[in-house]
Amino acid sequence: MTFEITILGCGAATPTLKHNASSQVVNIHDKLFLMDCGEGTQIQLRKYKIKFQRIQHIFISHLHGDHYLGLVGLISSLHLLGRKNDLHIYGPSELKEIIELNLRVSQTYLDYFIHYHAVNFESKEKIFEDHSLEIHSFPLKHRIPCVGYLFAEKPKQIKIRKEYINRYSLQPSEIIALKNGQSITTPKNIVVTPQEVCDAPEKSKSYAYCSDTMYWETLIPSIQGVDLLYHESTFLESEKERAKHTFHSTAAQAATIALKAGVGKLLLGHYSSRYAEEEEFVNEASVIFPNCDFSTEGKIIQV
Amino acid sequence: MTFEITILGCGAATPTLKHNASSQVVNIHDKLFLMDCGEGTQIQLRKYKIKFQRIQHIFISHLHGDHYLGLVGLISSLHLLGRKNDLHIYGPSELKEIIELNLRVSQTYLDYFIHYHAVNFESKEKIFEDHSLEIHSFPLKHRIPCVGYLFAEKPKQIKIRKEYINRYSLQPSEIIALKNGQSITTPKNIVVTPQEVCDAPEKSKSYAYCSDTMYWETLIPSIQGVDLLYHESTFLESEKERAKHTFHSTAAQAATIALKAGVGKLLLGHYSSRYAEEEEFVNEASVIFPNCDFSTEGKIIQV
Repeated sequence: MTFEITILGCGAATPTLKHNASSQVVNIHDKLFLMDCGEGTQIQLRKYKIKFQRIQHIFISHLHGDHYLGLVGLISSLHLLGRKNDLHIYGPSELKEIIELNLRVSQTYLDYFIHYHAVNFESKEKIFEDHSLEIHSFPLKHRIPCVGYLFAEKPKQIKIRKEYINRYSLQPSEIIALKNGQSITTPKNIVVTPQEVCDAPEKSKSYAYCSDTMYWETLIPSIQGVDLLYHESTFLESEKERAKHTFHSTAAQAATIALKAGVGKLLLGHYSSRYAEEEEFVNEASVIFPNCDFSTEGKIIQV
Repeated sequence: MTFEITILGCGAATPTLKHNASSQVVNIHDKLFLMDCGEGTQIQLRKYKIKFQRIQHIFISHLHGDHYLGLVGLISSLHLLGRKNDLHIYGPSELKEIIELNLRVSQTYLDYFIHYHAVNFESKEKIFEDHSLEIHSFPLKHRIPCVGYLFAEKPKQIKIRKEYINRYSLQPSEIIALKNGQSITTPKNIVVTPQEVCDAPEKSKSYAYCSDTMYWETLIPSIQGVDLLYHESTFLESEKERAKHTFHSTAAQAATIALKAGVGKLLLGHYSSRYAEEEEFVNEASVIFPNCDFSTEGKIIQV
């Protein structure tokens, strides 16, 4: 099953020729979720050939321009390109006012409906659920109200191997019993145990997106044990004071959070334009938390 | 003296991998004026190495997203990069509300001052003047209120060649008299005529920017005789009905306006993404108005 992240932009503050403003596409079982939408995101979606009409859910972490200024343009392009399907936008409540003002002045009447979901900046909250996935928002600590997002697959079903269904001519009621951990006896008096015929369920995976935050241990319970953690690393330790002052993190601080939260892998990003090489961030973080990687535009990371 | 246009974006409706959204830099005597500011304009400014802190005046034609959605990002980046100098923004009055809302939600307090100048959609109006230049806005005919902008150099001073000033030891009062077309007699009883010592003044140049408009002869008096006319050509004649329906123009219509207005040269742009080659527009227009050229990102056109 697909569970992967495509980086569209991972620069901080202002887009440059090296890095676009923040945005990612999370692809879970071929459902596309857009995380933040800095200026130029729609061009990045085209560049990396992502079918952006398939995005049904957009998540904005906070209202600094580098995280949302591409949103009105994307909404407008989806309309111009013929969208009819509803769009769900999660983020600060002011997004509705911003979007509606821009639509009003341009006399744009969308051919699709936008559902606005205002997030809670005080506590973790479930904001989405379907048969296989839950999404939560949770508070981050930044200069202005800001949330992270957690994508967690639900426990996956136990599967009975097809060869056994045929061999024992298993009926639906017997399959349900086996999946529930009970042994059954077939009409031919054969005892079939779950241990014999069931595969262990595939592990459920999880991803947490922490866009802009200072070093803040309070967020650890929200991301405990995720398979992949994206945690911003705007600065290196040499700029630790600046990081604190601007409510951002260093690569070492991101690694410390990853370590304390017991995550599987750490993904770094949201780089200040003062740094030339993404590898510098990995070099600093990997001393504390070895299994880490850097974001760069166009990179696809498997969860 | 410099008078040139740099194309930052010339695509219609939605940015693509081929064309950016509308924006141009007009450089007149090393003063930089930004015309429209579609999404991604700040990246284009970087790409073409334009010192964008030197821009003091931004002109927005109308509030369709492809003409202004890069403005808040640019304003924010100018701030983050240390701007202190005032910025003047000309365009629809709602721009103030849009910009102030975005600054408010991001809790951004600019270190520079923005002067908002609301344009008049009903009649031509002088909106800027300095010692050498006048700028007017004038109405265009589009789906929503929209203006064009006219840049006209003031008449240039007659200059007296230096060699004559030395030869005749001309005094300031004599120079003024000669510049005013009067002959003078030197203390040595030599008659000096303006014809002998003055160069004809350099021709004053003018540029008109007509961003989005249907074929509309009413605009002709506003652009009569300009040296360079940018007139949108969203479509070719094969899509003439669509052009009319969407309040846009074809290349042939742009050429007809250029011909009737007696302009020096026509510059085409604002292409629908359905067309692959900019040359198609020139091929159609040049039958009617031969001295025409096409916009493309990064191209510099001398006025």
